[in-house]
Amino acid sequence: MSELRRDPIVGRWVIVDTDHPNKPEDFEYEQYIPKGGTCPFCYGNEAMTPPEIDCFRDSNTTPNTPGWQVRVVPNKFPALQIEGELDRRGVGIYDMSNGVGAHEVLVETPYHHKDLSDLMNTEVENILQMWCRRANDLTKDKRFKYIMLFRNYGKAAGASLEHPHTQMVALPMIPKNVAEEIHGAENYFDYRERCIFCDIIRQETQEKERIVFENKYFLSFCPFVSRFPFEIWIIPKKHAGYFCHMPAEEIPALASILIETIARVKTVFANLSYNFILHSSPVNGDSGPEYYHWHIEFMPKLMRTAGFEWGSGFYLDPTSPELAAKYLKNQK
Amino acid sequence: MSELRRDPIVGRWVIVDTDHPNKPEDFEYEQYIPKGGTCPFCYGNEAMTPPEIDCFRDSNTTPNTPGWQVRVVPNKFPALQIEGELDRRGVGIYDMSNGVGAHEVLVETPYHHKDLSDLMNTEVENILQMWCRRANDLTKDKRFKYIMLFRNYGKAAGASLEHPHTQMVALPMIPKNVAEEIHGAENYFDYRERCIFCDIIRQETQEKERIVFENKYFLSFCPFVSRFPFEIWIIPKKHAGYFCHMPAEEIPALASILIETIARVKTVFANLSYNFILHSSPVNGDSGPEYYHWHIEFMPKLMRTAGFEWGSGFYLDPTSPELAAKYLKNQK
Repeated sequence: MSELRRDPIVGRWVIVDTDHPNKPEDFEYEQYIPKGGTCPFCYGNEAMTPPEIDCFRDSNTTPNTPGWQVRVVPNKFPALQIEGELDRRGVGIYDMSNGVGAHEVLVETPYHHKDLSDLMNTEVENILQMWCRRANDLTKDKRFKYIMLFRNYGKAAGASLEHPHTQMVALPMIPKNVAEEIHGAENYFDYRERCIFCDIIRQETQEKERIVFENKYFLSFCPFVSRFPFEIWIIPKKHAGYFCHMPAEEIPALASILIETIARVKTVFANLSYNFILHSSPVNGDSGPEYYHWHIEFMPKLMRTAGFEWGSGFYLDPTSPELAAKYLKNQK
Repeated sequence: MSELRRDPIVGRWVIVDTDHPNKPEDFEYEQYIPKGGTCPFCYGNEAMTPPEIDCFRDSNTTPNTPGWQVRVVPNKFPALQIEGELDRRGVGIYDMSNGVGAHEVLVETPYHHKDLSDLMNTEVENILQMWCRRANDLTKDKRFKYIMLFRNYGKAAGASLEHPHTQMVALPMIPKNVAEEIHGAENYFDYRERCIFCDIIRQETQEKERIVFENKYFLSFCPFVSRFPFEIWIIPKKHAGYFCHMPAEEIPALASILIETIARVKTVFANLSYNFILHSSPVNGDSGPEYYHWHIEFMPKLMRTAGFEWGSGFYLDPTSPELAAKYLKNQK
């Protein structure tokens, strides 16, 4: 019989198929191999993007020319715009406001064909530093309540450009999914006076069977209530509300576990597309950092989300996280 | 500038691109043309499915042989199983239970290549009657708290079998998304003593610009806070909590608006894949029917859901519902 598992943070139920689990070879996923071609994020094409906002580049080079390692530009087709006022208003029964916000693209590397797991540790450390720097900078704008960082890798994951990049969106309100997580974590904290994520880390570290990888500062594991097969969370072992307050000595550890985790997944699933999303506390408000614990949620694109999931918020996971962790641990 | 719109029921924010909207020809979606081949849902292959649960069939034919018009069978690979006890229990910080429930497949027509919009009205009326009959029957099992009906059409929508079918899942708990809608509708009812869906219908009927089609009993419209481009809701004009309590005289009107709506969308988008989901009040409990209003949510598969949506519950709609309704109204 399958199992129903309930997420302790947001109360979501997931059906885990423990009877006839999918093994890695059972997934028919859309493989992704970058094609190359003219790319606005490659060296020499800097003029194809809006002017850069921030950059790590060789000291003898000038902005918007080659010589950079990580380059941040505004999204050419931004979902939200930095200028203007929110102007919240009603339209009969509905509410609306202007689309104020920021939408930046962090080009992670000059190499068109290199995923994060193909880069050197120091290169990934640079990327992480830039994530922090941009998040800290955007936080200074008091109109913004949430900084969301996400990465779509591969066509099946919704990436419209091949060249590896992360997107950062500054939002004038806390998005619904985040608000629910915050609310759940706050309820737990009110009841137990402990962070729910810290308790999850404690239980996972004891039980061990869902852990993929760990180092001094970080844990990478398949969550007990995975929505997607081979879903992985990467989380700091010590309580921390904000990603962008990460101490400098932890950055190499995060770079290393990120590379290691992606490499392991891609050994099991060749040419995989995936999304990952950074979950961090809301900014410019009073909710979060005491009871919310930042982490990265990594979601491989092995299946298509169908009507069942959209209709219910109920997910069907054909591979238990215990089995997924076993496959991931044996690889690399 | 784009617009931010807030869903009045669940509080979800959506970014609507009103500056550079996508026209129908701007979408590069995966077209779907059924291939045919051996199919467990075609005449003569009845033995390839588990024995039928219910059926409309010619009076001189026997179960599990050809001669049927609509045929209901258990899902061969059910997400949940009908036998057993829920047995809710804790595992440290986590909660779980056994996977008790029902998972049925309603084969809608003997015709492998006919979508709902290719059928005659009376054929679709039969399907709707069978939906009601199965929902009413499953509701008798007091372990079930929610009956979910959904339809995946086409590969991009997650359909694993080509032959047109609807799936029905009986769940032992109210799924998260439904619980949120119920909660939002209840809050509104507490505050205004009116159904929020009835108020939406009133506003849409007055403003007219998002209406796709209407008849005596039903309205089909693009919701003000559409998550997806060309999203459409079909809703009874008169308040009704349960789909399966629909009066007999309304069934032909629903069949007609369903056919009409799907046909209109498929005229704009050839060979489209889509999902739709029936939202109805929870069963065997006390929440819902007074302030919840059943409806169908129709979601064309024109885009892939990427990290942004997964991470935030924030959606980005590149075509405003007003523009979508305009395209849909001018077609057919």
